[in-house]
Amino acid sequence: MSADFAFLEELAEAAARETLSRFRQPIDVANKETGGFDPVTEADRAAETAIRDLIGERFPEDGILGEEHGSASADSARLWVIDPIDGTRAFISGLPVWGTLVGLYEDGRAVLGMMDQPFTGERFLAGGEGAVLRTASGERPLAVRDCETLSRATLFTTSPKLHTGANAERYERLEQVVRLPRYGCDCYAFALLAAGHVDLVVESGLKPYDIAGLIPLVERAGGVVTTWTGGRPEQGGDIVAAGSAAVHEAALAVLGD
Amino acid sequence: MSADFAFLEELAEAAARETLSRFRQPIDVANKETGGFDPVTEADRAAETAIRDLIGERFPEDGILGEEHGSASADSARLWVIDPIDGTRAFISGLPVWGTLVGLYEDGRAVLGMMDQPFTGERFLAGGEGAVLRTASGERPLAVRDCETLSRATLFTTSPKLHTGANAERYERLEQVVRLPRYGCDCYAFALLAAGHVDLVVESGLKPYDIAGLIPLVERAGGVVTTWTGGRPEQGGDIVAAGSAAVHEAALAVLGD
Repeated sequence: MSADFAFLEELAEAAARETLSRFRQPIDVANKETGGFDPVTEADRAAETAIRDLIGERFPEDGILGEEHGSASADSARLWVIDPIDGTRAFISGLPVWGTLVGLYEDGRAVLGMMDQPFTGERFLAGGEGAVLRTASGERPLAVRDCETLSRATLFTTSPKLHTGANAERYERLEQVVRLPRYGCDCYAFALLAAGHVDLVVESGLKPYDIAGLIPLVERAGGVVTTWTGGRPEQGGDIVAAGSAAVHEAALAVLGD
Repeated sequence: MSADFAFLEELAEAAARETLSRFRQPIDVANKETGGFDPVTEADRAAETAIRDLIGERFPEDGILGEEHGSASADSARLWVIDPIDGTRAFISGLPVWGTLVGLYEDGRAVLGMMDQPFTGERFLAGGEGAVLRTASGERPLAVRDCETLSRATLFTTSPKLHTGANAERYERLEQVVRLPRYGCDCYAFALLAAGHVDLVVESGLKPYDIAGLIPLVERAGGVVTTWTGGRPEQGGDIVAAGSAAVHEAALAVLGD
């Protein structure tokens, strides 16, 4: 087992101790935005702290950007990008489609990534040596599928209402031409795409930490992930991931003007 | 353990052998509706056959109504109502929020029910002796939570687009007044409601087999489930389930005209 994956697994286990023990328990849900509902749980904060501590011990020179505790040495060539619980709304609803995301950027490129779902026991890992899914019953390589055309594609988005303004119309156009649109998954949809069960994931307004850990999963599994205009996805924004270059290109054409 | 629950567990295990072995495998997806996308998998049919066989052996006088293989002796006082895979779209997307549903109606009333999710290892059971969740790590009673008002409610619906015509407006009104609307769960949302993680589930156009197994779960966990006009839910239709009578009443007021 590579040292990279071993370290990611260490991070996943440290985070899972904080998240899983609070999953489906009565939890404190604070409001980040006045008037809105943007839950931040103790689980979020404790998991990110656990991850940051391990990174700080092992790679004290590296930078860190996390959803909950901000950035440190963010101009380092090596930057760890963390979302301790992507899908907080799923988490507080008891739905096991949230995940702990960790990505490593080298000179701005995502080179190592993880999505860990400790309730279902699924750990998705990707880096220089490829992309794998590890579960209690073993390990298997991740590989996208090629559905060939948009008309056969299964499309995921967290909610059609996340796409606003011009994006809303563009998203709706895409939804009209795919075979099966589905809602409600956050990071889990990208992991399913890397595993070959889903063909297209489209999101709007992502932060870097929403996508960092997922980029290597999609790319190392053979997929494509960019912004809606075809740019690199490392800085987040409007993101589209696809199981093949042809489907990605077709989706960009629909999402473009 | 009661004989009722033991029999439900037997049904769950027979169904899981057919479903789980095909979950996340390349599967045959046939089209039930010309032009639409209504997948029926081999898993669906094989699981229903396995359940029907066991019921036929144990209770040869009872009637059976199933999604895939229709009805037999449907005018019996005791009627088993089966959805072998509720959430076929989740199933074919690799998403573990589908379930095997079995309900028993006596003189038209749901008295026994089960929702089994074999990938996550969660078995929700309800009947005369109450409602429980059984997992590998044990059993715990199911109990709804009371969020007191709609403004604090987490609301699930499979898709906002399932509500059409007048229902669409009514549903949107409800979505505007709850705290957190979420999409994409089918039967799993009702199970989460029975387990106290979710406050409200609203669906349109359900068939009897979409709700039969879930009615006892919601009711025995302390919740309320009816049609949008407050009628009994056994025949399906437009369904609303809530974690408390007050929230249920408030939801009916919004969903009514």
